[in-house]
Amino acid sequence: MTRFASLADLRAACLDLPEGHTDIAAKVAGREAVLTKPQGSLGRLEEAVAWLALWQGREPPRLDAVEILVFAGNHGVVAQGVSAYPAEVTAQMVANFATGGAAINQLAQTAGADLRVLALDLDHPTADFTDCPAMDESIFLESISAGYEAVSREADLVVLGEMGIGNTTAAAAIAAALFGGGAERFTGRGTGIGEDGLKRKREVIDAALAKHDAILADPLKVAAALGGRELAAILGAALAARHSQIPILLDGFVCAAAVAPLVKLRADALDHALAGHRSAEMGHGLLLEELRLSPLLDLGMRLGEGSGAAVAILVLRAALACHTGMATFAEAQVSEKDA
Amino acid sequence: MTRFASLADLRAACLDLPEGHTDIAAKVAGREAVLTKPQGSLGRLEEAVAWLALWQGREPPRLDAVEILVFAGNHGVVAQGVSAYPAEVTAQMVANFATGGAAINQLAQTAGADLRVLALDLDHPTADFTDCPAMDESIFLESISAGYEAVSREADLVVLGEMGIGNTTAAAAIAAALFGGGAERFTGRGTGIGEDGLKRKREVIDAALAKHDAILADPLKVAAALGGRELAAILGAALAARHSQIPILLDGFVCAAAVAPLVKLRADALDHALAGHRSAEMGHGLLLEELRLSPLLDLGMRLGEGSGAAVAILVLRAALACHTGMATFAEAQVSEKDA
Repeated sequence: MTRFASLADLRAACLDLPEGHTDIAAKVAGREAVLTKPQGSLGRLEEAVAWLALWQGREPPRLDAVEILVFAGNHGVVAQGVSAYPAEVTAQMVANFATGGAAINQLAQTAGADLRVLALDLDHPTADFTDCPAMDESIFLESISAGYEAVSREADLVVLGEMGIGNTTAAAAIAAALFGGGAERFTGRGTGIGEDGLKRKREVIDAALAKHDAILADPLKVAAALGGRELAAILGAALAARHSQIPILLDGFVCAAAVAPLVKLRADALDHALAGHRSAEMGHGLLLEELRLSPLLDLGMRLGEGSGAAVAILVLRAALACHTGMATFAEAQVSEKDA
Repeated sequence: MTRFASLADLRAACLDLPEGHTDIAAKVAGREAVLTKPQGSLGRLEEAVAWLALWQGREPPRLDAVEILVFAGNHGVVAQGVSAYPAEVTAQMVANFATGGAAINQLAQTAGADLRVLALDLDHPTADFTDCPAMDESIFLESISAGYEAVSREADLVVLGEMGIGNTTAAAAIAAALFGGGAERFTGRGTGIGEDGLKRKREVIDAALAKHDAILADPLKVAAALGGRELAAILGAALAARHSQIPILLDGFVCAAAVAPLVKLRADALDHALAGHRSAEMGHGLLLEELRLSPLLDLGMRLGEGSGAAVAILVLRAALACHTGMATFAEAQVSEKDA
């Protein structure tokens, strides 16, 4: 029994979204205006605090329970030679997450976040989407539901990441399907394929776009046909967070592609999301523009695992510390701006 | 008795700079290459660790003793109406730093850094540089020495910041003097002046550039004539850190202008420096390009106090945590890239 019994159920849930608490965000802005600094001089730090409060409905907002969810899946399309690494690396990296040896383990600890890794049926890769849809409706809805149920309703912030050899191919296919431009526009080197591999990856994606031409106007069918289990779970988690008015931080290209169908269904569907960073993966910047998300960081990272978003948690902690800890002009007896 | 007895002494010290430990940086790169991630996929995080090691001469590098030095000074040029805030705010904010109410107090705590504030003779503003040099040689060398002596030789990282009503005027004047383009190119709104104020600020700076035309080819005389006590101290601190091979993080526009004369004296003088962020203050991005410094963060901050650089400390901590904590491919039994 999955959370969503049908695509129609899921579609309805994607359209029924709560707004943020604009009254609480206004309270945050009111306090920011009297703290001992020129107004607006903390830039995106001020905006970030207001955004946290908008969704949490709390002034001050909190970052006590920060949860990083990393979803892992395997992809049939790797048979087409689209990745620099063999498919078994997905499971090997999940084991590495479990023993604390991956980048995201160190970054979660540094950022004071809880890390949870959900491996989604790694022994059964999705189908090769150059042949048929990657997932049938049943697998797709199960994966969506797995992500939806993974979100703790008590979290102050949910950070979404992924692991899956081959999944930048799925992400580029989804992005091109939703926003046009073909494989050329969104396909990059992923974990580091060479020139020949990149050419093959583009051909594979263009072939898939042609194969699934009939469903490209339906964002959820695109997610099922061209995505993967971990991408579907990320979509589900983003949706669950919105339903619980929990702000989310997105990691890189694969995360952005995973949630992009939500925006196609409802333009404001990602108002509760911030892009943690802009990945060095070529298509990410373009995709963020399509999603109207402005990344907090741009550090040339392209690892996935939630790593870029985990670094961005630190920026949010800095922002919140300023908001809650600073003195007002009156408290500190500092003169205000000349009239 | 100051550290530098004459401009000639100081100039000699600016030309006599140690290199970094390239052998140690190579060791860092060697370890990065076998950690469980695609090579280079942590982007600037990997570069940052190698840079810390290059200057500290330690693999792994450390961030145990991180020191934020904020220098404060007052400026005679504020009489010309170049700032949105009255001059007494410099001392009021120094008091706010002392009682822990400013942004930098919260950010230093979040970043695990020690904050030291050095107020430089606030009761005696520098001279109005539209009339005469802001500082005579004696005051200039005292201020340089104050900064030089403030650097703890045992620090793992020194973060430089400033406070001084009027000091973006001094910074824009220095930048224009060293790199050309007149006031137009580097003058922004500072703490938030309006259109009329901005016009006046540009006129004041162009007048100063004309007044001091005879010394504009001498970077240290530029720093004395157009700078201020806190800018000179920042130059001294950056120089001391280089002599002790301590890496430094620079904050915003004023910091960048303060150290710019060093680069004019010796092109590699800031190899031990990273720009913590790009400020929203208009001239900063241009000045960083002139200095060939690529900022770590771009968060629309424009507060000074070391605030942007303090946030960047968090990125360095994240980078170091990955470098020291991650498993290698062999340790984690993860397959490497396909040949």
